[in-house]
Amino acid sequence: MEQTPLYIRVHPNDNVAIVVNDGGLGEGAVFADGLRLRERVPQGHKVALADLAEGDEVVRYNVVIGYALKPLPKGSWINEHVIRMPSPPGLEDLPIATTRAPEMAPLEGYTFEGYRNSDGSVGTRNILAITTTVQCVADVVQHAVTRIKAELLPKYPNVDDVVSLGHTYGCGVAIDAPDAMVPIRTVRNIALNPNFGGEVMMVSLGCEKLQPERLMPPGTIPIAAAVDDVADIGDVALDQNGDVVVLQDESHVGFQSMITSIMKMAEGHLKRLNNRRRETCPASDLVIGVQCGGSDAFSGLTANPAVGFATDLLVRAGATVMFSEVTEVRDGVDQLTARAANADVAQAIIREMQWYDDYLKRGGADRSANTTPGNKKGGLSNIVEKAMGSIIKSGNSAISGVLSPGEKVNQKGLIYAATPASDFICGTLQVASGITLHVFTTGRGTPYSLAEVPVIKVATRSDLARRWHDLMDINAGTIATGQSSIEEVGWELFRLMLEVASGRQQTCAEKLGLHNALTLFNPAPVT
Amino acid sequence: MEQTPLYIRVHPNDNVAIVVNDGGLGEGAVFADGLRLRERVPQGHKVALADLAEGDEVVRYNVVIGYALKPLPKGSWINEHVIRMPSPPGLEDLPIATTRAPEMAPLEGYTFEGYRNSDGSVGTRNILAITTTVQCVADVVQHAVTRIKAELLPKYPNVDDVVSLGHTYGCGVAIDAPDAMVPIRTVRNIALNPNFGGEVMMVSLGCEKLQPERLMPPGTIPIAAAVDDVADIGDVALDQNGDVVVLQDESHVGFQSMITSIMKMAEGHLKRLNNRRRETCPASDLVIGVQCGGSDAFSGLTANPAVGFATDLLVRAGATVMFSEVTEVRDGVDQLTARAANADVAQAIIREMQWYDDYLKRGGADRSANTTPGNKKGGLSNIVEKAMGSIIKSGNSAISGVLSPGEKVNQKGLIYAATPASDFICGTLQVASGITLHVFTTGRGTPYSLAEVPVIKVATRSDLARRWHDLMDINAGTIATGQSSIEEVGWELFRLMLEVASGRQQTCAEKLGLHNALTLFNPAPVT
Repeated sequence: MEQTPLYIRVHPNDNVAIVVNDGGLGEGAVFADGLRLRERVPQGHKVALADLAEGDEVVRYNVVIGYALKPLPKGSWINEHVIRMPSPPGLEDLPIATTRAPEMAPLEGYTFEGYRNSDGSVGTRNILAITTTVQCVADVVQHAVTRIKAELLPKYPNVDDVVSLGHTYGCGVAIDAPDAMVPIRTVRNIALNPNFGGEVMMVSLGCEKLQPERLMPPGTIPIAAAVDDVADIGDVALDQNGDVVVLQDESHVGFQSMITSIMKMAEGHLKRLNNRRRETCPASDLVIGVQCGGSDAFSGLTANPAVGFATDLLVRAGATVMFSEVTEVRDGVDQLTARAANADVAQAIIREMQWYDDYLKRGGADRSANTTPGNKKGGLSNIVEKAMGSIIKSGNSAISGVLSPGEKVNQKGLIYAATPASDFICGTLQVASGITLHVFTTGRGTPYSLAEVPVIKVATRSDLARRWHDLMDINAGTIATGQSSIEEVGWELFRLMLEVASGRQQTCAEKLGLHNALTLFNPAPVT
Repeated sequence: MEQTPLYIRVHPNDNVAIVVNDGGLGEGAVFADGLRLRERVPQGHKVALADLAEGDEVVRYNVVIGYALKPLPKGSWINEHVIRMPSPPGLEDLPIATTRAPEMAPLEGYTFEGYRNSDGSVGTRNILAITTTVQCVADVVQHAVTRIKAELLPKYPNVDDVVSLGHTYGCGVAIDAPDAMVPIRTVRNIALNPNFGGEVMMVSLGCEKLQPERLMPPGTIPIAAAVDDVADIGDVALDQNGDVVVLQDESHVGFQSMITSIMKMAEGHLKRLNNRRRETCPASDLVIGVQCGGSDAFSGLTANPAVGFATDLLVRAGATVMFSEVTEVRDGVDQLTARAANADVAQAIIREMQWYDDYLKRGGADRSANTTPGNKKGGLSNIVEKAMGSIIKSGNSAISGVLSPGEKVNQKGLIYAATPASDFICGTLQVASGITLHVFTTGRGTPYSLAEVPVIKVATRSDLARRWHDLMDINAGTIATGQSSIEEVGWELFRLMLEVASGRQQTCAEKLGLHNALTLFNPAPVT
């Protein structure tokens, strides 16, 4: 059976639209409004709705995403080869906090079952995380974690998992360079993620640059599991300074003694974590990070708008929501500064954009380094178009705060957490910033996940959701075909977040035991 | 029983020497020559052998490692707080190929049992390596490798191991930036390491920037296992272009189908690898990388000189030896350019130093970012002193070639493979350059190892060798106490290399199953 030719135009001012049909449409296909394709257009790609002369603006999302490189009669396929990318908006003369966010009624009565910590933060999982000060110890810790999971974890049924926070920082790096604070605070703040209940334990080599006291200066560890009954813990040290196993310590004779030290220290923390209990918490205690990866032209039509709707629900409920990915908002910086809650927030957004512009320039690159072969195959002609579809995840609320890469969040509402767009680096930095649940949209498909917080994956297309049935948690592809609305999928996602946060439902990746290694952002040199 | 106070002066012109005694020596200790300590000096730290006035040169290895910041009477403790570091040597007016390498007789008759490949290269292990084009697939591949090792590897007893070549590159990076060729060629050349027998298989996501054909352009895979009998392989593709599993391929329905695809492709390669057989090869077929990490003041007195002696043996035997670590030779660049076999080699050394100077400067750092708290505790006052002890690993031969980071070696003799000094990055780049065996010296101690090639670890001190008895393969600490000579330990290391290369002996790390994750050098920006 032939599918009826179908396109989606996002904004009435757009002069291009997206072909929806699976497999695309051939030359001569005629849409309901009489538009006739002059050539084959793949699914997700753009068709010209009007005759474009050379140099004419190509408009999608009511934004100029490029200029026609040649005459493009209506019905033509519009792709990266026939349009020229515009210059990025300058960082001067931007609108500052000019947009009044739409009135949105508070959303009350939604709760989840979380692990409340003594500093008020709330975890969604109960995980023993072992911090590493340096890459040298990573494999030893991994050996220990394997044994802890096999031999100790079964004795502490209230603990969900044991995770090694391995990374490639800590030595062989210019640790006093101006930008070194980014990876250092990232490693530090990950250890303080609410899912770990304040139970910081570290494994250090001994001679590394990132010494334990540099990673965790006294007073760094403010949170602790709200545990009343610790009487049965025995001789376990209960101070709040974190504990450190140093492999070069003279007490270690042979490899086994290192493993034994780590396991012994881990057991003390497991005992305390095992006393954590879930309690009913308002949705305002959620800290959610949103991200997209492996995007296609449907990302901005289906999954990201649904996430944006859910973002608004969360902000209405008083929660914290972070969106990120500098190069994927750079071309919409004017939208962000306009939506800033106040001038300070707008200036902080500009500061982060400027920092990243400079960072890319130092390395001989610019924002156009974003967009992948897969993005283009999926219909995204350039970073401008990709960015417009990416920003939609942030919904319509005012932006109430800005974080530099790896900084810890300390406020509610919609937060711009400036990070690279690399899925892995963005996720790692959001974990450092304190998210307890992550939402990830994808059109091309990726097995992306995190060990530290649950990741809900949203497919932009039904075909992907069907094929990757055990890797995708939600299918937003039904929005493209009209089977469901943005609002419906947004509510579905919001409700699923509460279920997953409460531990009543596992994500696909949790069921499969899939997760990425942490990937730090180190803009400073290695040595 | 009191130990007799003992120091080691490296060169007759030196005005400082190293305290050898375990635990150091207290104020008032008197050496055989009558020198009396004016204060406590820890083991491995320097004592002034003459009265130094403020501004006087402090000389070790016959090189000025600093200038006295205050009067330092003989018997004083000389450490990083009392000396000022010299400026690095300029990169102009260097001696170019001025030093004639000492006459060294060819060393003949030494052999090992290796896996010869059809391009003439020889592996020391028989490993199935699965290349990843992008970090997105890393955990899926790891899941597959676990199953391959459990279910398939036992059927192919001639194959030593299955290794996932995971890394954090491939997407979310400025892949067209000028410096992006470094990580790209590194991933490519690792896949071509002689230990993998030319059996290149890749796992790709599909939408990533580093597409399989970009990673491995046609004709990239020149080597192949010298296998005569492949009749029993059945329907396995035998072309030499490498094979790719693409997770986003439409044939994949669900996670299990991805694992099945990888396992099926892996089995084809396992069948071919299983036909490899060791044969007797001359020592000239060895490609050895040398490195030091977690160094102390004994590194330049014991382990590194022994490695340097073994390096000379290898060069005499016609083998290839790489030394690396730019910031750890930068202060001795004049020694390297002088030892260059010809002017082209000297200019290539200068080019690599200049590139790294610029790279560090862009990030607001310089060579002094090298040296760790552990180096300093171990007696190394600054990078100048550390570098002088590090260069010694290269022995006395002429330098016959230079490699930029991640380039593949194609010649014999002593090669300067320019890499960062980070243990992990240096090791990863040397694997890309084609080493089949790695020698690593350490004074403070590190569990460092590699999955791709065996790593022989050499302790600089007996105390470390004793405590880390199952992590250290050779103890060079006996040199400091006169129990053995540099020559003796050098020969011991040379013989052990032949044993390990032949698979007759496993390294400590191999026995424990310890290895680092690969760590790429990406001097270009992420996006």
